[in-house]
Amino acid sequence: MVHASTTLKPALDAIGKAIDQRFDRLLPVPDDARAQLFNAMRHAAIGGGKRMRPLLVVAACDLFHVDRERALRVALAIECIHVYSLIHDDMPCMDDDDMRRGKPTVHKLYDEATAVLAGDSLHALAFELLADPATHEDPFARCELVTELAVASGPSGMAGGQMMDLIAGDTLYDIGGVTRLQQLKTGALIGFCLEAGAIMGRVPEAQRTPLRGYARDLGLAFQIADDLLDVEGSAEAAGKAVGKDEAAGKATFVSLMGVEQARTQAAMLIDQAIQQLHGFGEEADLLRAIARFAIERDR
Amino acid sequence: MVHASTTLKPALDAIGKAIDQRFDRLLPVPDDARAQLFNAMRHAAIGGGKRMRPLLVVAACDLFHVDRERALRVALAIECIHVYSLIHDDMPCMDDDDMRRGKPTVHKLYDEATAVLAGDSLHALAFELLADPATHEDPFARCELVTELAVASGPSGMAGGQMMDLIAGDTLYDIGGVTRLQQLKTGALIGFCLEAGAIMGRVPEAQRTPLRGYARDLGLAFQIADDLLDVEGSAEAAGKAVGKDEAAGKATFVSLMGVEQARTQAAMLIDQAIQQLHGFGEEADLLRAIARFAIERDR
Repeated sequence: MVHASTTLKPALDAIGKAIDQRFDRLLPVPDDARAQLFNAMRHAAIGGGKRMRPLLVVAACDLFHVDRERALRVALAIECIHVYSLIHDDMPCMDDDDMRRGKPTVHKLYDEATAVLAGDSLHALAFELLADPATHEDPFARCELVTELAVASGPSGMAGGQMMDLIAGDTLYDIGGVTRLQQLKTGALIGFCLEAGAIMGRVPEAQRTPLRGYARDLGLAFQIADDLLDVEGSAEAAGKAVGKDEAAGKATFVSLMGVEQARTQAAMLIDQAIQQLHGFGEEADLLRAIARFAIERDR
Repeated sequence: MVHASTTLKPALDAIGKAIDQRFDRLLPVPDDARAQLFNAMRHAAIGGGKRMRPLLVVAACDLFHVDRERALRVALAIECIHVYSLIHDDMPCMDDDDMRRGKPTVHKLYDEATAVLAGDSLHALAFELLADPATHEDPFARCELVTELAVASGPSGMAGGQMMDLIAGDTLYDIGGVTRLQQLKTGALIGFCLEAGAIMGRVPEAQRTPLRGYARDLGLAFQIADDLLDVEGSAEAAGKAVGKDEAAGKATFVSLMGVEQARTQAAMLIDQAIQQLHGFGEEADLLRAIARFAIERDR
């Protein structure tokens, strides 16, 4: 299914296993009336998805020789946020999706109330993971992680972007609007993944510029690739319904630029993202491979 | 409306104003497509509710002479969590309430999708507030606040209790079950309010026992009073629909113990809560007044 480079394939397999194992340990099903809640969280969190955000966290942490186990705690936290957003986003009042990652969505398998609570629970767990001393011995680093993730996922980040997306059927955005929407909706969390590497490595603020540039370019390219997938892909390959943006009358990079220009633009952004890493050696090879993969995904 | 003691009335008025002011500053409406999200958050957060949790935080911080402005940041964070939980809880798939705090609920005034996102946004903001250096100069204290709030609001706290409540129509709990449900659903956050005072005051773990006892007793008494209000109260006094637990066939303290015994039990718990504070002087008078108020609310 995945035409990943030789560098990336083992890394994707490894991060998938590592995240599944850690979700399994994080979410033991209690022998009480909360069992359904934990089963719903497990259903959404375990066994599925590309784990692109966790892989970005680990790749960014590798730049600064961060202990792998600690990096994986941050990776798990960002995946908690990502999965919670998918659960809520799939609900009938939002995107109304029945399938996600090739499985029924939480509200289809259980009910909407359980979906609300499973999302809220994963949301809280993300911050519990980050604030724990096991994540970093320096409490300043832990606080910085909490702050950055809260901003990236809140109304000035992901949730704000989702609000923009909600009214996208009525408000026809231009390229600037679609770019802003995507920077908030998906770009902010991708930005956190890279920032997290710098925070975990205690890298001074001034040296974080290349990572931020990489995150911005990658996030945008990733979204353009997603829009292309939505137009050209099969539901089977995507693991979810496709063609929904067009049906909803929403402006996308593809509807505004056309397929060919969108593809060219995404490729240019990926070159630029890789260029941002020129100051790094082979420790950045995984980030380079992820960038190439972003526009190479199966259509 | 409120038969609060002379100690409490000015404190309730002051915390109400202080929290409203700070929500107003925290949530300026942006001049972009996210305006509806911020307006929905403001609608739910500003001007309403007893602000009992913020008052508890401030009262607990007063025990240890914590700077008032810092205490109010923690108070605002807990109210963010409380308000987010009300927004989600009022949704049609959960409690399906049209009115809250005497105003239309968020999903009635806007729509369900906006309600999901407004709740999620307030959820993230709570942690952003706590992790900020303005809340406490010691990052260990900030991390502890984040950890405690995440645990109290997540699947081992509030969200877990809400799950238990969801299936309460099918699972008829006994007194032990109802107590456990309430300890998670409302008790955990009340526990956080008191714990926050100790964290802000850097009080050693060993000295926190009385505060935890007070929180446990108060939380239970508060819930029994709420159940009594649900049976005997008017919708006008409660600011929301009443008689819902009975209609849903849910076991409550009142359905299991009867009105008279429930009232006696609540009074006994309040005596016990106040007794927990015997080691404190007049700096605990506000906590004592809050305890008395918990069972004196208008019916």
